Amino acid sequence: MATLTDIGVSAFINIVTAFAFLLAFALLRIQPINDRVYFPKWYIKGERSSPRRNRNFVAKFVNLNIKTYLTFLNWMPQAMRMTETEIINHAGLDSAVFLRIYTLGLKIFVPMTVLALLILIPVNISSGTLSFLKKELVTSDIDKLSISNVRPASIRFFFHIGLQYLFTIWTCYMLYKEYDYVASMRLHFLASQRRRVEQFTVVVRNVPYVPGHSVSDTIDHFFQTNHPNDYLCHQAVYNANKYAKLVRKRERLQNWLDYNQLKFERHPEKRPTKKTGFLGLWGGRVDSIEYYKQHIKQLDKTLTLERQKIVKDPKAILPVAFVSFNSRWGAAVCAQTQQSKNPTLWLTNWAPEPRDVYWRNLAIPFVSLSIRKLVISLTVFALVFFYMIPIAFVQSLANLEGLERVAPFLRPVIELKFIKSFLQGFLPGLALKIFLYILPTVLLIMSKIEGHIAMSTLERRASAKYYYFMLVNVFLGSIVTGTAFEQLHAFLHQSPTEIPRTIGVSIPMKATFFITYIMVDGWAGIASEILRLKPLVIYHLKNMFLVKTERDRVKAMSPGSVDFPETLPSLQLYFLLGLVYAVVTPILLPFILVFFALAYLVYRHQIINVYNQQYESVAAFWPHVHSRIIASLLISQLLLLGLLSTKKAANSTPLLVILPILTLSFHKYCKHRFEPAFRKYPIEEAMAKDILERTTEPNLNLKAYLADAYLHPIFQSFEEEEELVEVRVDKHQTHGVAPSAGEIISPSPPHDVHHSPSPPHYVNYPSSPPQYVYHPSSPPRYDYRYEVEP
Amino acid sequence: MATLTDIGVSAFINIVTAFAFLLAFALLRIQPINDRVYFPKWYIKGERSSPRRNRNFVAKFVNLNIKTYLTFLNWMPQAMRMTETEIINHAGLDSAVFLRIYTLGLKIFVPMTVLALLILIPVNISSGTLSFLKKELVTSDIDKLSISNVRPASIRFFFHIGLQYLFTIWTCYMLYKEYDYVASMRLHFLASQRRRVEQFTVVVRNVPYVPGHSVSDTIDHFFQTNHPNDYLCHQAVYNANKYAKLVRKRERLQNWLDYNQLKFERHPEKRPTKKTGFLGLWGGRVDSIEYYKQHIKQLDKTLTLERQKIVKDPKAILPVAFVSFNSRWGAAVCAQTQQSKNPTLWLTNWAPEPRDVYWRNLAIPFVSLSIRKLVISLTVFALVFFYMIPIAFVQSLANLEGLERVAPFLRPVIELKFIKSFLQGFLPGLALKIFLYILPTVLLIMSKIEGHIAMSTLERRASAKYYYFMLVNVFLGSIVTGTAFEQLHAFLHQSPTEIPRTIGVSIPMKATFFITYIMVDGWAGIASEILRLKPLVIYHLKNMFLVKTERDRVKAMSPGSVDFPETLPSLQLYFLLGLVYAVVTPILLPFILVFFALAYLVYRHQIINVYNQQYESVAAFWPHVHSRIIASLLISQLLLLGLLSTKKAANSTPLLVILPILTLSFHKYCKHRFEPAFRKYPIEEAMAKDILERTTEPNLNLKAYLADAYLHPIFQSFEEEEELVEVRVDKHQTHGVAPSAGEIISPSPPHDVHHSPSPPHYVNYPSSPPQYVYHPSSPPRYDYRYEVEP
Repeated sequence: MATLTDIGVSAFINIVTAFAFLLAFALLRIQPINDRVYFPKWYIKGERSSPRRNRNFVAKFVNLNIKTYLTFLNWMPQAMRMTETEIINHAGLDSAVFLRIYTLGLKIFVPMTVLALLILIPVNISSGTLSFLKKELVTSDIDKLSISNVRPASIRFFFHIGLQYLFTIWTCYMLYKEYDYVASMRLHFLASQRRRVEQFTVVVRNVPYVPGHSVSDTIDHFFQTNHPNDYLCHQAVYNANKYAKLVRKRERLQNWLDYNQLKFERHPEKRPTKKTGFLGLWGGRVDSIEYYKQHIKQLDKTLTLERQKIVKDPKAILPVAFVSFNSRWGAAVCAQTQQSKNPTLWLTNWAPEPRDVYWRNLAIPFVSLSIRKLVISLTVFALVFFYMIPIAFVQSLANLEGLERVAPFLRPVIELKFIKSFLQGFLPGLALKIFLYILPTVLLIMSKIEGHIAMSTLERRASAKYYYFMLVNVFLGSIVTGTAFEQLHAFLHQSPTEIPRTIGVSIPMKATFFITYIMVDGWAGIASEILRLKPLVIYHLKNMFLVKTERDRVKAMSPGSVDFPETLPSLQLYFLLGLVYAVVTPILLPFILVFFALAYLVYRHQIINVYNQQYESVAAFWPHVHSRIIASLLISQLLLLGLLSTKKAANSTPLLVILPILTLSFHKYCKHRFEPAFRKYPIEEAMAKDILERTTEPNLNLKAYLADAYLHPIFQSFEEEEELVEVRVDKHQTHGVAPSAGEIISPSPPHDVHHSPSPPHYVNYPSSPPQYVYHPSSPPRYDYRYEVEP
Repeated sequence: MATLTDIGVSAFINIVTAFAFLLAFALLRIQPINDRVYFPKWYIKGERSSPRRNRNFVAKFVNLNIKTYLTFLNWMPQAMRMTETEIINHAGLDSAVFLRIYTLGLKIFVPMTVLALLILIPVNISSGTLSFLKKELVTSDIDKLSISNVRPASIRFFFHIGLQYLFTIWTCYMLYKEYDYVASMRLHFLASQRRRVEQFTVVVRNVPYVPGHSVSDTIDHFFQTNHPNDYLCHQAVYNANKYAKLVRKRERLQNWLDYNQLKFERHPEKRPTKKTGFLGLWGGRVDSIEYYKQHIKQLDKTLTLERQKIVKDPKAILPVAFVSFNSRWGAAVCAQTQQSKNPTLWLTNWAPEPRDVYWRNLAIPFVSLSIRKLVISLTVFALVFFYMIPIAFVQSLANLEGLERVAPFLRPVIELKFIKSFLQGFLPGLALKIFLYILPTVLLIMSKIEGHIAMSTLERRASAKYYYFMLVNVFLGSIVTGTAFEQLHAFLHQSPTEIPRTIGVSIPMKATFFITYIMVDGWAGIASEILRLKPLVIYHLKNMFLVKTERDRVKAMSPGSVDFPETLPSLQLYFLLGLVYAVVTPILLPFILVFFALAYLVYRHQIINVYNQQYESVAAFWPHVHSRIIASLLISQLLLLGLLSTKKAANSTPLLVILPILTLSFHKYCKHRFEPAFRKYPIEEAMAKDILERTTEPNLNLKAYLADAYLHPIFQSFEEEEELVEVRVDKHQTHGVAPSAGEIISPSPPHDVHHSPSPPHYVNYPSSPPQYVYHPSSPPRYDYRYEVEP
C-alpha cells in the first residue's frame, strides 16, 4: 500500500520524465537535420521543402535561432489550430475519428471527475472506519478517500449506487451521441467522396472450378447471367507470392549495392570488398559493387521468367476476382446478396480500397478458413491464459548456468561478481520483456493467418486480441494476484457470483498501483511517443549509409501511421480503469484526465505532422470502440455489485442488477441502430450518387476508369526502379470489348478474354495520399506504398 | 429407486394403455359417423365423400362389416404406403420434413442402441462394484447395467469414452447428411414450385412519414427511385384489427342464430327464447331467433360503416406494405439489401406467404419491437425459473378453507369426509395442471407480443421457449431435486466446473424415472394423439347443434395441423435423453427407439389422413432442430465429463474436453454451410427461374397476377356468408397504370393512386391447399382459413 507521499514521489518522477521527453522533442524538432523525422507528412504532401537549403554549413544541422528555443512548447497550440474538417482532408477520416476517442474520454470523464470528487470524497472521508481499524489493516491514505473507508451496511452506499446510475446514464448518453455523430460523419464522408474504384467493385471469393473453362470465363459467364444489367468487367488476381519474394530479395541487394557505391564515392581510394560466404564471415573476397551488380542482373532474369510464368500459367490465376459493376447500385446489390445455391461458393463482399488489400490472403481457399479461425481462437485463448508457461521455460534456460554451458568461453567474464549480479537481475526479465515487445507483431501475424483480406480488418482483429490480453493480464492480472492461468483455475472452481466479489474486494486496494501505471504508461509513454526515438535513429542511419538521391531520402522517412493494434486496446484499458474506479476510488480520475488531454495533444500533433495513414477504413473501428466501452461499463457494474455484497449492502443488489440489463439493452439498440452504417452500403445512397454522376458526367468511361485499379502492386514496385515502362490506359477508349493499351503491348494472357490487365504493366499514379471531399474531377491517385507481406 | 420388476409393471400398464388407445382408435375410425374426424384431409382435398350415403339407417352410424374389425391395426401399413414425394404433394414440405426428424432419430439411435447394449452392458455388469456396496447404497437392478456399476478409476471407462466419441461422430455424421438432404429438398422444392406471389414480394416495414404525402405515394416514390428497373407495384396494409373484432363478434352471433334455428326446426312446437341479461341468466325473455337476427342486422350496419372508415381514413393505412417486383431477382435483391441510410427505416424482408401472415403484428411500430423483445425475454426467463411461485400462491388460495370462505354455501358439501379428502388430494395439483395445459398457448401469445409477422415464425419462437422450459423443468428439474428457482440459486453459487459434476452424479440414478416418463409421455401420449378424443367430441357436439348444411359440416371438421410448438420441443427432449443416457445407462435406449418408431407411424398416419397444414414454411424449422440436437450432444458430453470426474477418472478429462470443441466447430461449419439456404434466396436461383418463366410465358401479366394477393383476409371471411360480391380482377389488363376492376366498382381510397386494391372486395380463390411440384399453369389457390387474432 502506497501512501500519498509515495504517489507524490512517483508522480514527480513521471512528470519529470515526461517533461524531459517533451523538452528533448522540442529541442530536436527545431534542428533542420531532423526536419524529415518530425514533419514527414508535410514532405509527403509536397507542402514543405528542406529547411537546409540556403543556409550556411552549421545552420544546416543545428538551429542557431535562440528565439525558437524559448517557445519550446509551442507545438501544443499549433496542434490545436487545425479544425476537424481540415484534419479529415489532411489525414483521412480514420485519424479524425481516432482523435475523437480522446475527446470522448474527456467528455465522459470531466463531469464524472468533478461530481465524484465533490460528492464521494467527503462521503468517504467522513465515514472514517479505517482510522479505527488502522492497527489491523495496512491501509494507505488513498484508501481513506475510497469506498473502503465507508462502514459496512452504511446508508451512505446509496451515494455510490446513485452515482453509478448517473455515470452509466451519462456514459451511455455520450456514447449514443458519439456513435450517432461518427455514423453520420462516415455516411457524409462516403457521400461526399469523389468517384472511387471500391464503390463499384466487389471482391468475389471461392469461384468454383468449371472443367474446360478458365476462371475468367467462369466469372464472366456467371455475372453476365445473374447481373446482366449491372456487370461491367472483372480483374483476375494472380498468385504473385513467389514473385513478391523475389522482388523483396532484389530490393535487399539493391540496398547493399547503394551502400557500397556510396562508400566508394566517399572513399574513392578503397574499393569495397566482401566475402562470399555466410553473413560475409568467410569465403573468397570479391569486389562488392561488381558482386551485387552481378546478382541483381541474375535476379532480374529470374524475375522476368517468373513474370512470364505468372502470365502464361492458368494456375497462377486464383479463384478470386475483383468484379466491377457499371453503377454503385449494382455493386451494393451484389455485395449484400447471396449469389449461389451453395453458400460456400461465389462469396461476395465489398472490395477494400486497393491500398488496403492484403494480397497474400486472397490465395487462401475457403475450407481452410474455418479451420484457421478455430486454431487461431484456441491459440489466442492459450496465449492469454498460459503465456507465462513458455516464458518461464525460457527463463529457466536463460539463467547463468545455462549460458555458461552453451558458451564456456564466457565463463571468466560471467564469474566477475559485478557482472554476475547484473545478469542475474537482468536475464530472467529479458524473456518477458522481449515477449511483450513482440506481442503486437505476433498478434498481427495470427490475424493474418486467420485469412482476412484487408489490412484494416487485420489491424482491427489484432487490436481485439491485444485487448483481451490486456484485460486479462494487465487489469485482472494486477487485481487478482497470481498468473492468468492460476486465475483461470480459481475462476473455474468458484461460483459465478463469487468472482465479482473476489475481484471487487481487491479493486480499491489496487488503486495506487493503477495510478502509478497510468503515470508510467500513460504520461511518460505518450510523451515518448512524440519523441520518435526509433524513427529518428533509423532515419539518420539510413541517411548516412543508403541515401544517394532526394528520392532515397523520401523513402528513408518512414512516417508510420497510428498504430491501431496497440493504441486502441490501451485506450480502452483507460476507459475501463476510469469507469471502474469512478465510484470506488475517485481520486484516480484526475490522472486519467491528464492522460486523455496529453495523449489528445500528442496524437493530434503526430497526425498533423508525422503519420501518413496507409489506408482509409472510414472509421470502421468505431463499433469496436463502442462495444468495448460498453463492456467496461458492464465490468464496472458487476465489480461494484461484488464489492457492495462484501460490504453487507446486499439489499442494494436488486438496484444494481438492473443496470447491466439496461446497459446491455442500450448496446443492442445502438448496434441495431448504427452498426449497419458501418457494415452495409444503403441502396438509397448508392442510387443517389449514381444519379448525380449520370447527370454531371454523362460521358464517363467507367471501364477505363476501373481498369488496372486492382492490380497486384508487386508488378509495379520493381519496375519503378529500372524499366519504368509506363502504360497509360487510353481513357477515351470505347465502352466495348476493345483490348486495352496494356494488352497490345504486353504478351496478353490467353485466358483473359476481356480486359483484365496483363500484370507486368501498371499505371504509374503519383504516390501522394488520396484527397477526398469535393474534388469531383481530379484523377484517381493511389498510394501503393504498403507492405505486401508480413 | 425402481427395480426391474417395477419397470416391468410400469411398462405393462403403459403398453396396455397404449393398446387400449390404439384399439379404441381402430374401432372408432371405421364407424361412418366418425369418418370426418379421422379422414378430414381427404375431405378437404375433395377425394373422399361421406361413406354415409347409400347405406341403410344403422350403417350410417355404425360399421356393420365384421371383417374390418379383425384387421384393426391395418392403418399402420397403410400409413407407410405413401412415398415421401407423395407426402410432399399431399401435405407440404413441412410435414414431410417433420417426419424425417423421427426417421433421423431412428437412424441415430438404432446403431447406437445395438452397440451400447452389446458393449456396455457386459462391461458394466462384470465390473460389479454395486454388489459389494449394496448395503450402503439403495441401488436398483437397472443401476447394475449402468455406468454406476463400474469401479472408480477403472480402466473400463475408456470403453465409455470411446463410445462417446463414436456416438458423437455418428450423430454428427447423420446430422450433416440430414441437413444436406433437407437443404437440397428445400431448394428443390423452391425451384420446382410454380409461380407464387411471395416469390415476387417483399414486406417493407417502418415506412417513414413524409409530410404532405400519403404512405402509398411515399412507397411508390421510394421504390421507383431506388429500384427503377424492378419495382412493379405495392399493396397497402390496412389496420383492420377493430374490424376483425367486429367480424368475429358477428360470427359468434351467427352461430347462436344457427343453433336456435336448428333447435326450432327440430322442435317446431316451441319457439326458442332467451333472457337478454348477462350470460342469459336474467333480464326480459325474448324470442332468440328474432333477437339474434336483429343484432346481426345492427352489426352489419356497423361493419359497413367501419369498412367505409378504413377505406376513407388515411390513418388506417399502416406504414407497412407488401412491395412486389417484376422479377424474382428484383425481390431477392430488395429483401437482402439495406435500403435506407437510417437502418431503422425501410426494413425489407421476404414476405411470408399470404396464409402465413400474422396481420395484427404488422401494426407494431419498430421502436416498440426492441422493448417488446427485452420484456418478453425477461418474462420467459422468469417463467422458466420462477413459475412455481405464482402456482404455489394460487395453491395456497385454492385450498379448502379458501373455498369455504369464498363460497360459504358449499360448506356442508365440502365437510363430507369423502369429498373433503378427494378435494384435498385434487385441488393443490389442479393449479399446476391447468398451468401446464395452457403453457403452450401462453408461450404462443408471448411470441405474438414479440411482434413477428408470420405464423410460422411465431410457432418456431414459441417452440424455442417451450424447449427451454422443458430443458430446465423436465430434464434438469427431474435430475436435480428442488424447484427450478432453487436450482438456479444453487448453480449461481457453485463453481462452473461443479455443475456438471452435481448433475452428472445424479444422472444414472434418474434413469428409471426417465424410462417411466418415456412410457407415459411417449408411448401412451402418442397413442392418445391418434385417437383425437377432443376433436371427436367437439365435432359431434357441433354436428348436433350447429350443422345445417354440408358446408357447415366441413367447417366443423377442424383437422388441426402438426402442433410444432409442442411436438418439436418434446422430440428434442427425447434426443437429449437418448444422447445423455446412451453411454450412462444404455438400457434406456430401446424405450426411446419404441417411441420414435411409434410416433413416426402415428404422425405419418395423421399427416396423411387428418392434419391440414395451415402454412408452408418450407422446412424453416430445420436449423432449430439441428442446433438443439447439437446442444443435446454438448450437454451429454459435459455431463459425462462431470460424471467421470467424480469417478476418479480425472485423467480422462483432456480426452473429453476435446469433444465439445469439435462438436461446436462442427456446428459452426454446418451453420455456415447450410443455414443460408434457409434464410436467403440465392440470386442465381432467382435469375434461373425468371429466365425460365420469361421463355415459357412471355406474355404473362404479372401485375394482374399479384393484385390483391396480400389483402387482409378479414375483408373476405365475412362476405363469404352474405354479400358475396365477387370481384375478379381483369387478368388481361395492360401492364400500365390503368385502374383495376376493383377500383372501378368500389369507392376507391383516395390515397391509393396506383392499384392497391380497395379492401371491401376480394378475389374468391377456391379454398383448397396449394399444390406444388410441376403445375406451372394452374391458377393460384390460396387458403385463407387461418386465425387472424389469438
